[in-house]
Formats: sequence, C-alpha cells, structure tokens
Amino acid sequence: MEASIVPYDCIIVGAGPAGITAGIYLVRKNLDVLIITLDVGGQAKLSTDVENYTGFTMIPGDELVRRFEEHLNSFNVNIVFEKVKAIKKENDIFRVETKERSYWSKTVIIASGKKPRTLNVPGEEKLIGKGIYYTTLFNAPYFKDLPVAVVGGGNSAMQAILELSKFTQKIYVINITEDLTGDEILKERVKKLGFVKIFGNCKVVEVKGENRVEEIEVENVKTNEKFSLKVNGLIVLIGLVPSLDFELPEGLKINEKNEIDVDQNCCTNIPGLFAAGDVSDVKWKQIIIAAGEGAKAALSAYEYLMSRREFLEEKF
Amino acid sequence: MEASIVPYDCIIVGAGPAGITAGIYLVRKNLDVLIITLDVGGQAKLSTDVENYTGFTMIPGDELVRRFEEHLNSFNVNIVFEKVKAIKKENDIFRVETKERSYWSKTVIIASGKKPRTLNVPGEEKLIGKGIYYTTLFNAPYFKDLPVAVVGGGNSAMQAILELSKFTQKIYVINITEDLTGDEILKERVKKLGFVKIFGNCKVVEVKGENRVEEIEVENVKTNEKFSLKVNGLIVLIGLVPSLDFELPEGLKINEKNEIDVDQNCCTNIPGLFAAGDVSDVKWKQIIIAAGEGAKAALSAYEYLMSRREFLEEKF
Repeated sequence: MEASIVPYDCIIVGAGPAGITAGIYLVRKNLDVLIITLDVGGQAKLSTDVENYTGFTMIPGDELVRRFEEHLNSFNVNIVFEKVKAIKKENDIFRVETKERSYWSKTVIIASGKKPRTLNVPGEEKLIGKGIYYTTLFNAPYFKDLPVAVVGGGNSAMQAILELSKFTQKIYVINITEDLTGDEILKERVKKLGFVKIFGNCKVVEVKGENRVEEIEVENVKTNEKFSLKVNGLIVLIGLVPSLDFELPEGLKINEKNEIDVDQNCCTNIPGLFAAGDVSDVKWKQIIIAAGEGAKAALSAYEYLMSRREFLEEKF
Repeated sequence: MEASIVPYDCIIVGAGPAGITAGIYLVRKNLDVLIITLDVGGQAKLSTDVENYTGFTMIPGDELVRRFEEHLNSFNVNIVFEKVKAIKKENDIFRVETKERSYWSKTVIIASGKKPRTLNVPGEEKLIGKGIYYTTLFNAPYFKDLPVAVVGGGNSAMQAILELSKFTQKIYVINITEDLTGDEILKERVKKLGFVKIFGNCKVVEVKGENRVEEIEVENVKTNEKFSLKVNGLIVLIGLVPSLDFELPEGLKINEKNEIDVDQNCCTNIPGLFAAGDVSDVKWKQIIIAAGEGAKAALSAYEYLMSRREFLEEKF
C-alpha cells in the first residue's frame, strides 16, 4: 500500500437490500463508506408484488427499491457504479479492484447477491432479450394474446404467471417437479386462473428461432418423451446463482452452492471480511432476511474496526 | 394429548417485529397459526424515531408498529392476548400453557423479545410510573422545564435525551461508562444541544421520594464519591433482558445472558422449536434484524413440518 492512500473504513460490494442496509448502518456510525455496484436494488427490483417485507402490506419490487434508495440517499453515501474484478487482502488492508481502478479499505462486506440461473441449452444465448427473459417486469405486456412459456414452478415463476395472465391466456409452465412449489396462496391463485397449462416433470432442451423465440423443445424427464411448443416468449425463473464472478481473497470459505460461508453474525473466515444476503450461505433468500443480514454485517464490521483502534485512532 | 385436540401447525409466542414477520410468512403458507402475546409491537413501539429500518427514511416506532400490525391483519391471523406460563414438549407435540388455558401445536416459535432492565436499587419499585419510566414515549411532556435524569448512554438513552430536550433544558445523564456510546450521529446531536450535563462513570444507587421521584443518589464508580441530584423524573435506559419469564421445554439451550441459542436458521436444539429476534442469541438487537430472523424461523418451521408428512397428511 502506498503511503498516500487513505483506505476507506468499509467497502460494500453490491447495493441490493443487504448492501443498502449495511450502508445505512455504517454511515450512521460516521464511518468512511464506499459502495461499489453495477445497479441499485438487485433481485428485489425484479419482484412484481412483494407481500412479505414487513411493514408494507403490498408493494411492487421496484417501488420498494426506490424507497431503499431514497433512504440510503438521505445520508451522504459514496457510491460508484463499477464492476468489481478482484478483492485481495494485502497486509491487513483490502484492495478492491474494478475494471477502472483500485480502492483500499479496512473492511469489506460482500453483498453482491444472486443472478438468474440460465437454462444452458442450445439457442438460449442468442435469443436473450429476443423473447427470452429472466423476469416478467416490464415485458409482460409484449405478450398480449400471444403464447408464452414460463420455466419454473416456485414463487417467482408463479408471480410471473399471474403477471402474464393479465395480458394472455396462452400460458404454458415447464416445471422440473410434478407440481408447483412455493407459497400455497400463490398456487391457489394460479390454479384459479383455469387456463394455465402445466407440464410437470419437464425441462426445456432447446430454444428455436432466428431473430425471435419461435418454438421450444421440451423433454419429460420421467418418460424421456419430447415435444415442441410454439411460443413467442420464454420466461426463465429456475432460481439464482451467487454473483461471485470476481477474484476472491485467498482461502475464503465457500460452500458447494458457491455461497460464502458466514456465521450467525455475517463474519467470514477472513478477519475484516463479511458477507450478507443472498450471496452468503444463509438458507433462505428473502428481501427482509437480506436486509437484516446487511445490518448484522455492518455491526460486525463496526465491532471489528473498534477492536483495532490502530485503524481508527484518527477518528475516535 | 386428547384425541379430540387438533394441534396448530405453529404457535408464535410474541408479536414484535420477529413474531409478526413469522406470522406473515406462515399464514402465506396456508398453515394454522396462532400468535399468543400480551401486546403488539414489543420494544419497537417504544422507539421514538426509527431511522434504520430499511425502506422508511424516518418513522416513529409506534407508526412502524402500526404498519406491521396492518400488514399482519391483511391476512386472517389468529391472535390471543394471554400470558404464556409454560411451553412443554409432550410426545412430539408442544403444549403452550397460558394463565387461562392450554394450546397444542406441532411447532413453536419463541419471539417474546426483551424487556427493560431495571436498576434494582432501593426506592425504584415503589416509584415505577411515579416519575420512573423505562421509555420517554408519551411521558416527555410531563417534564416541561423540570429537572430529569436519564440513566444510560446508548442509542435509546440518547434518543430519550433528544426527546426530552424539546421540553426541558435541565437534563442530567447518569452513565456507567466515561462517554456516551451508540451511533456517532446521535452523539453529535446530543452534544450540540449544549445544556445536557453528563455524569460519566456513574450509577444511581437510590431513588428517593414519597409519592413521586424527588431526588436520586448517584455514585461515581471510579472515585466512590456520592452526590445527590434533585429531579422530578428518572428515565432508565440501561438495556434489556430476555422476556423468558415462563417455563421452557426441558433441555433447551440458553446462553449466559439468558438468551435462547439458535443456529443461523433460527433452529434451537429442540426439534420443532424455533426462536427469533431479541430473545435469541443473535448478537445485534435491531428491528430490521428481528424481522429477518422472524422470516427465517418461519421458513425453518415450515421446512420441519414438510419433512414430517405425518403432521400434514390431511393438508397436502
């Protein structure tokens, strides 16, 4: 580290519910905080109607994120929109490298969340954004009266079905399990629609079309039978994978799902490094849980800084 | 268990941020849920201005609780206002006894929160409500232009000082540490007032007065010097203790602070028994954290029920 570099007290990677909450907590402690992120809101922004963020009976995901952002902005928080390439620990200080430059910090909170899992089948990559989407937000009206397939059977998939049902009655569901999973309340609403055709025990094996999605090839995983469906759109909601496409500090413990191992208080196995929200191995991926975990990570980072007064002599 | 008794799927003890969130999550799963509590909101209701519940830039604690309650009531949740006396596990089923009756359930989530720690000094008990309070909510205006002492130096104490400062400039702070603790942002606001007299390293050893608080006896814990202060009120904000004044299932693990041991997913060491929020050993006691933990406990209870299909055969 060069002598002229003054490290931040904390760098937060990501600005979903966990990163934003961590930011709010740390700024209220008068610490020097920098948030590095590509967007604000993360997966929360892609939820249609959120009914389980305590305090809001029902709120669209993007509106909830707008409130999170407004809350964060009520403090003066440094935020840069850059892509993180590496986090390295060098002599007790972390170096966070983005495409553009390097930043130094005494602590780091990784709150980079998750991103949608892709199908990984022929035809998918070239048709992304051309009929293939990983959300129904903003794009459901495109499918007015057109056939569309939803891949998946959990809460996100069911919310997508409900959203699409406002515009079309030609909805297919391709679901790897026999029946829909997720909240009963959503299952009931989907079944009540009456026109949704569910293909259980099925997966998409190919997407066909030149400039737009035209047809999907589906396989029944029990019978190995294959069949085709003509569709104009394919909404893929088969879960998420951790957003960890950057170099991590040497020795950081990661579980088999590629999530960062944390203890009850969001500490990783590397002193000064914390993780919160969907990128951590906390079992349940929920907005309210991620927000709570962000607060924990911030308070753990603060405690770590306070326990190392050499870091903070100038400050306290 | 008598043959005629149909147990609930889950009984939640307490209706603070953790209990309410657990209730919302479980009702959305179409489970039979009963909340047993003495009040709604818990400690959250006693916060003056909450600035760190993500999504609400600034909201009074009682207003936040009103929104929690409204959110819970948007579902049909069974709630009884009774005092829990014992939780017992009998042949895989929990029996929750209140003063009035017994309830049976397949799972229990303890979310009974914390209650204010008392001074435990002569004169305190008889003057509770007669000048001694454990909150400034509703009572700050009583002290218009009168001398009042705040015991404690953390966030709650500082919020109380700020609230009292709207009505009186005669504010003493009796604090066991040298300086105020808690968020820098609050410390700055308190110090900016200019008229708050802080007695560091001090504790209250006696409260004097016949029908009302008239005087407090204070001791400096470093010098052992004692002195008296004439005050009309004493606001005690020296932390909280777990609300566990009922019989717990045999063998339940509790830590040295009398908090219930939980893992990262709010499971206790007793199968089917979960704990969430301030009553658990999660280090940080915050509204947003308690809400997140409530969601975790609910999802863990749901997973437990689903893993024991004999409990749910009639349902799924």
